[in-house]
Amino acid sequence: MKNILVIHGPNLNLLGTREKGIYGEKPLDAINRDIISHGASIGLIVDSFQSNAEGEIIDAIQNASKKYDGVVINPGGYTHTSVAIRDAIAGVSIPFVEVHLSNIHNREEFRKTSITAPVCRGQISGFGEHSYILGLEAMRKILE
Amino acid sequence: MKNILVIHGPNLNLLGTREKGIYGEKPLDAINRDIISHGASIGLIVDSFQSNAEGEIIDAIQNASKKYDGVVINPGGYTHTSVAIRDAIAGVSIPFVEVHLSNIHNREEFRKTSITAPVCRGQISGFGEHSYILGLEAMRKILE
Amino acid sequence: MKNILVIHGPNLNLLGTREKGIYGEKPLDAINRDIISHGASIGLIVDSFQSNAEGEIIDAIQNASKKYDGVVINPGGYTHTSVAIRDAIAGVSIPFVEVHLSNIHNREEFRKTSITAPVCRGQISGFGEHSYILGLEAMRKILE
Amino acid sequence: MKNILVIHGPNLNLLGTREKGIYGEKPLDAINRDIISHGASIGLIVDSFQSNAEGEIIDAIQNASKKYDGVVINPGGYTHTSVAIRDAIAGVSIPFVEVHLSNIHNREEFRKTSITAPVCRGQISGFGEHSYILGLEAMRKILE
Amino acid sequence: MKNILVIHGPNLNLLGTREKGIYGEKPLDAINRDIISHGASIGLIVDSFQSNAEGEIIDAIQNASKKYDGVVINPGGYTHTSVAIRDAIAGVSIPFVEVHLSNIHNREEFRKTSITAPVCRGQISGFGEHSYILGLEAMRKILE
Amino acid sequence: MKNILVIHGPNLNLLGTREKGIYGEKPLDAINRDIISHGASIGLIVDSFQSNAEGEIIDAIQNASKKYDGVVINPGGYTHTSVAIRDAIAGVSIPFVEVHLSNIHNREEFRKTSITAPVCRGQISGFGEHSYILGLEAMRKILE
Amino acid sequence: MKNILVIHGPNLNLLGTREKGIYGEKPLDAINRDIISHGASIGLIVDSFQSNAEGEIIDAIQNASKKYDGVVINPGGYTHTSVAIRDAIAGVSIPFVEVHLSNIHNREEFRKTSITAPVCRGQISGFGEHSYILGLEAMRKILE
Amino acid sequence: MKNILVIHGPNLNLLGTREKGIYGEKPLDAINRDIISHGASIGLIVDSFQSNAEGEIIDAIQNASKKYDGVVINPGGYTHTSVAIRDAIAGVSIPFVEVHLSNIHNREEFRKTSITAPVCRGQISGFGEHSYILGLEAMRKILE
Amino acid sequence: MKNILVIHGPNLNLLGTREKGIYGEKPLDAINRDIISHGASIGLIVDSFQSNAEGEIIDAIQNASKKYDGVVINPGGYTHTSVAIRDAIAGVSIPFVEVHLSNIHNREEFRKTSITAPVCRGQISGFGEHSYILGLEAMRKILE
Amino acid sequence: MKNILVIHGPNLNLLGTREKGIYGEKPLDAINRDIISHGASIGLIVDSFQSNAEGEIIDAIQNASKKYDGVVINPGGYTHTSVAIRDAIAGVSIPFVEVHLSNIHNREEFRKTSITAPVCRGQISGFGEHSYILGLEAMRKILE
Amino acid sequence: MKNILVIHGPNLNLLGTREKGIYGEKPLDAINRDIISHGASIGLIVDSFQSNAEGEIIDAIQNASKKYDGVVINPGGYTHTSVAIRDAIAGVSIPFVEVHLSNIHNREEFRKTSITAPVCRGQISGFGEHSYILGLEAMRKILE
Amino acid sequence: MKNILVIHGPNLNLLGTREKGIYGEKPLDAINRDIISHGASIGLIVDSFQSNAEGEIIDAIQNASKKYDGVVINPGGYTHTSVAIRDAIAGVSIPFVEVHLSNIHNREEFRKTSITAPVCRGQISGFGEHSYILGLEAMRKILE
Repeated sequence: MKNILVIHGPNLNLLGTREKGIYGEKPLDAINRDIISHGASIGLIVDSFQSNAEGEIIDAIQNASKKYDGVVINPGGYTHTSVAIRDAIAGVSIPFVEVHLSNIHNREEFRKTSITAPVCRGQISGFGEHSYILGLEAMRKILE
Repeated sequence: MKNILVIHGPNLNLLGTREKGIYGEKPLDAINRDIISHGASIGLIVDSFQSNAEGEIIDAIQNASKKYDGVVINPGGYTHTSVAIRDAIAGVSIPFVEVHLSNIHNREEFRKTSITAPVCRGQISGFGEHSYILGLEAMRKILE
Repeated sequence: MKNILVIHGPNLNLLGTREKGIYGEKPLDAINRDIISHGASIGLIVDSFQSNAEGEIIDAIQNASKKYDGVVINPGGYTHTSVAIRDAIAGVSIPFVEVHLSNIHNREEFRKTSITAPVCRGQISGFGEHSYILGLEAMRKILE
Repeated sequence: MKNILVIHGPNLNLLGTREKGIYGEKPLDAINRDIISHGASIGLIVDSFQSNAEGEIIDAIQNASKKYDGVVINPGGYTHTSVAIRDAIAGVSIPFVEVHLSNIHNREEFRKTSITAPVCRGQISGFGEHSYILGLEAMRKILE
Repeated sequence: MKNILVIHGPNLNLLGTREKGIYGEKPLDAINRDIISHGASIGLIVDSFQSNAEGEIIDAIQNASKKYDGVVINPGGYTHTSVAIRDAIAGVSIPFVEVHLSNIHNREEFRKTSITAPVCRGQISGFGEHSYILGLEAMRKILE
Repeated sequence: MKNILVIHGPNLNLLGTREKGIYGEKPLDAINRDIISHGASIGLIVDSFQSNAEGEIIDAIQNASKKYDGVVINPGGYTHTSVAIRDAIAGVSIPFVEVHLSNIHNREEFRKTSITAPVCRGQISGFGEHSYILGLEAMRKILE
Repeated sequence: MKNILVIHGPNLNLLGTREKGIYGEKPLDAINRDIISHGASIGLIVDSFQSNAEGEIIDAIQNASKKYDGVVINPGGYTHTSVAIRDAIAGVSIPFVEVHLSNIHNREEFRKTSITAPVCRGQISGFGEHSYILGLEAMRKILE
Repeated sequence: MKNILVIHGPNLNLLGTREKGIYGEKPLDAINRDIISHGASIGLIVDSFQSNAEGEIIDAIQNASKKYDGVVINPGGYTHTSVAIRDAIAGVSIPFVEVHLSNIHNREEFRKTSITAPVCRGQISGFGEHSYILGLEAMRKILE
Repeated sequence: MKNILVIHGPNLNLLGTREKGIYGEKPLDAINRDIISHGASIGLIVDSFQSNAEGEIIDAIQNASKKYDGVVINPGGYTHTSVAIRDAIAGVSIPFVEVHLSNIHNREEFRKTSITAPVCRGQISGFGEHSYILGLEAMRKILE
Repeated sequence: MKNILVIHGPNLNLLGTREKGIYGEKPLDAINRDIISHGASIGLIVDSFQSNAEGEIIDAIQNASKKYDGVVINPGGYTHTSVAIRDAIAGVSIPFVEVHLSNIHNREEFRKTSITAPVCRGQISGFGEHSYILGLEAMRKILE
Repeated sequence: MKNILVIHGPNLNLLGTREKGIYGEKPLDAINRDIISHGASIGLIVDSFQSNAEGEIIDAIQNASKKYDGVVINPGGYTHTSVAIRDAIAGVSIPFVEVHLSNIHNREEFRKTSITAPVCRGQISGFGEHSYILGLEAMRKILE
Repeated sequence: MKNILVIHGPNLNLLGTREKGIYGEKPLDAINRDIISHGASIGLIVDSFQSNAEGEIIDAIQNASKKYDGVVINPGGYTHTSVAIRDAIAGVSIPFVEVHLSNIHNREEFRKTSITAPVCRGQISGFGEHSYILGLEAMRKILE
């Protein structure tokens, strides 16, 4: 069994209440239950963490390498602005997979550029809650 | 009576000591007293909140929708960089009014673009402390 | 009592008939009555002027300094294109406040840049007709 | 059972011989066998098609809607240049998922922009051959 | 003796009839005879291929590595737009030399950037038909 | 009587099925009948040709000069990307008129630039099927 | 019978004397006679208006909706600079067709962008005087 | 004796009262007297014209060719925005010299580009009132 | 003796473990000991502070002016994104020196621009741990 | 009497032989004689200096302040590239006037920007040899 | 026999010692011997000149037209920055061929643009020392 | 003992006379004495060299590697324009440290980019004369 951390960035705690047309109707707790359950079914022990604070996400990334084999991260709005989160990811040696609920390529222009994706193994974008499940599947393959 | 939250972004706690030529001489406490007093005179119960931390401001925005009818926000330096605060504002359903002490249009080039203004109802910029008072007036009208 | 000129730029004479979703349903005459009435209530004698012609607006700005203590201006489409209006504002010594009915920050990209705002005291954008009222309030404070 | 077409764009017939450091060592035939086999295991009947010609890929996209329930597409070098393929995808009503073997976000600057992704449901990039498997998984979920 | 393929991209079949001021008066057949003749004189067996279709050019590039020791290519209009041809060149291991009849540096702005040149050994531009001869000379030296 | 070729670029064979809000409901066959019929009424013998392949369109352009007096072309998605089609048009001596069904000026930013229009006599954009009729009218005048 | 206004923008009164290589030799009066005559032949009563002044053109646009069923407009140099004329067109409900004598796509770079075309139904460019005739034809079809 | 028209663009009627640090202290009337007097001393009969309206300046340019041998023009703020004035200058056959009071090269970025200078014979910038005198001298030489 | 604060921005706590090829092998604790020791040798009492959180760094900057005579700051990834840290530095009156371990000028394009350097006295970049020592030396000279 | 240095930049020694259509037919010696003669007639003792070397021009600028009251400079190709010449001009206290033979505003795009003009008093461009004479006239006025 | 000058720009005297991976191992003297020898074999008398100074290269270009029939030039780092060298080349009437040792198209972004190539007959780039030989061959053909 | 060359670029010979607000009041001779004296105190024998000529600076860089162990260079205005100096630095094997008197990050936009810094070990900017001393200290450490 491998240990995986799922990091939810800013505003993802609003899921189920915020802009449902874009992000879907299921609250974060329910999504986390689905993620954990799916992880268990493919041999991954999944923890999740959410924060609105860039510094706390950096802390979580740094600490992850001590306890986890990989990280699935949805950096939310920090995807497009945070060199510091990018540096944190580049600074730890476990693999990262970046996921997004919405298809960031057909929204505002500024959402098309990801500062963090170049230091992740890959990026999955546009499949709603299912992006997390695909991220776990991708991570499982990477860890084989 | 309506409940309004006024959010002061980073470095606004320095008011009265910082670059007085640009931001004026009155400290934040005094400004808050003026804001609360003016709010009361036009039927608004005003609370204020200041933080230098992007994550705390996001938390405040998310929580505001439970207690307040509207928010007047001066995002300070985050105005020009924070997609995460923009997402937080877009994610709650109460109205926001963006205010700035200085006229952001006649300062450095990078201050002319606001990432947050497009998800607020409007923006008021350049009237010093009075920008907050005008923000309250605008909010009062929106809430009618 | 102070004397204030309100300048309405191009196409504002169409108010009440043009793109109501963006600009509202009230015709310019009615808005002018509201502005004059509100001005009177806070010690300002307000005149208004509308023109579709850039040159006439420049003339009005130049002449304003002889008769008025301040100008509230909605430059309409000239906001984004007229260096000549900017130069006129910079060339007279009374204060200007720029106002917009719609929130120019969440419309087309070319509406986000104001050529005239840097030479005004401040800018108020997005509150419909109420932007003019807030502009008068801002001017009253500036003239104190 | 659903029918899925997997479209491989230009140069993917070179897989296993071309730039192995970036694209891996397995030839396209072997990858296609893995894709078909995995599809079968999750209830998808998979056909595959490869072409180096933009026009043939457009033809394949147009015809796909008559026979298939969805398309997983790796547009290769056309990802970054082909408005015509984008229009073809937008012109048929079945869902598309875009996949890439390499992480397009950490390669040359011109590979970061996808012209086709905005008209697909989502994009999966960076997991080598496994990107196709994840694409099938994503499609299965979309078709539920 | 080495085997060389000369690839003529789109519209080069029009040589001798098209924009003679820019491209010269000799038709492609005559140029091919000169190229083959010159090649023979320096120990190169030269075949030539012309196509207006991007996909056919990619096919030709991929197949070239099985039969030829090097390729001299004039990608014509695809020079400035085709990531797929670039990927094809990068995907085969024999050397490529890019040639242009006209001096692409003193024509329209969009002709100054070559997408394909970075994956060729070098570029020769501006000497009319003689660019092909120089390309063969360059290739002969590379193959020594 | 003059002979005219109408070239329909990529995806125009989807007319009547594709994005009807933008492109209208009439299939290409019906449009071709209207074009031929209108042509006949003003002294033009009209043939039509459709292809999704850039190379085939270039071939058609090159061959057109042998049989036709002018070409009305809707380059579809290649309008914005194809230097090779531009070169083909520039390489033949008969006149071209560029037409578009939709108003390319009020769609995505990348559709506003036409690479091919500068080598055509003129451009007609935004009148649905009627753009072709107007293109024939324009051509008739040019050929007078 | 429908009523149509043809608006000629700045410098079009110079036609027949100004840069004949670009704009042709016929004076505006003669062109207007042709336009009116052609209009009459297809059921359109045509009036024409010329002004060098942006404000007067805006006035004409605003007033047109009271008397005319549609407007054919050649905004001349204001095509590329006037947000105010764009707003006027967007502010009236009758249809507009934009026309240009010269092919604006093969002249200076700054002439390629039209600020006004996105709010017109379509644009016709490059056919000399005949652009107006085609504009009338387009308008007749729109009004059917 | 030659006849010369000096055109003063928008806001130049404010000279002597407007931003004296930049534009100097002498009013326009006095400057015109100096210009006329200097003109007379070198064989030029000078008339002057000032307008804040773009359309009136265009009218003046068009009419100038009937009565004057050359024009010295300070287009003021229209220098940087008016394609229509550029077209007017290009449309008449007498020579133009562009002058500016201030050195437009060391002011705001947007003042560095002149839309009108390319169609004038030359430009003189930065010598205060003396720029007009130098402009007359330049014109005298051109007319020799 | 002067009091100096050294602020280490995000991810600098990873020193000695993160990307050693770029940042070196010595952990932050050891570096801090060297800094303090060197400071003592030149008359500076040095404290150090590290945080991954933008808000905490802003707090530290604001508080520094009460206790310290100067600040040496390595803003890490916030160097390139944080207007709020820039505002904090500009808002306190003690001098700042910006330092970087790596030569930011020969890394990714986005690392070449510093938002914070313009409000510091100077910048030292590229000397590994020694950049801090040089920063202290620079500060000692500034405080003389 | 004032002493003036005229500096001719690179390639101006070719005058009379180089691109006569642009620069005229008179050789530099003859132009220098005209300049000296005209200078004498208005109370200026003129020396001239020509060099193709950036460093020698910088030396000449630095030394000029010891012997001359002002400098008229045509920086030639260095106008658009030399920060070092700009710094030299800014570093001496006598006034500079920049002149150009051709109208730099209607030539290649890269000739429109002058790096040196912002540190000169003004710029005169487009009057051929007469630009130098006008430069002397301007300098005479500056020195009054 | 024709006389040819080969100009080597800055840092080419370092050949054989500098960045051998990019520029090769042969010193300039040896390369010059090869060039002279090859020239002699095809009827060209070759002289060579090297300088690190922009001004000296301009002098050499200007003087070349008196003694040589053509110039092969490697402008080194000045290729990308020197308008003055471009002007010198444009100012003499003999033909120039630009050569580069390395393939400038796959190095840093700023090396992709050549300021000098548009005024040369053509450019040869990427064949190491052999670029000079190809340059001579090209020149021989031009001079026929 | 190590030998170090300090290279002063263009206009630094003006120190003490030129723009004292930016560059300080001490002449270059005095600064050189301080540098030599400080060098001696830390085991460095320092020579200095100043030139306004790009070519001479390149020569000095090339020769430095024969006699010196390292170079401290202030490239002055060439910092932002000289690819040739960059190539010279990259072409010799001893280490370089770039220094600037003023803080180049808070001056004109064009001074923020250094072409030479990426090939130096590091850059020190903003500490006046003391930048040289810090440069020597940095070099001493590099040479340990």
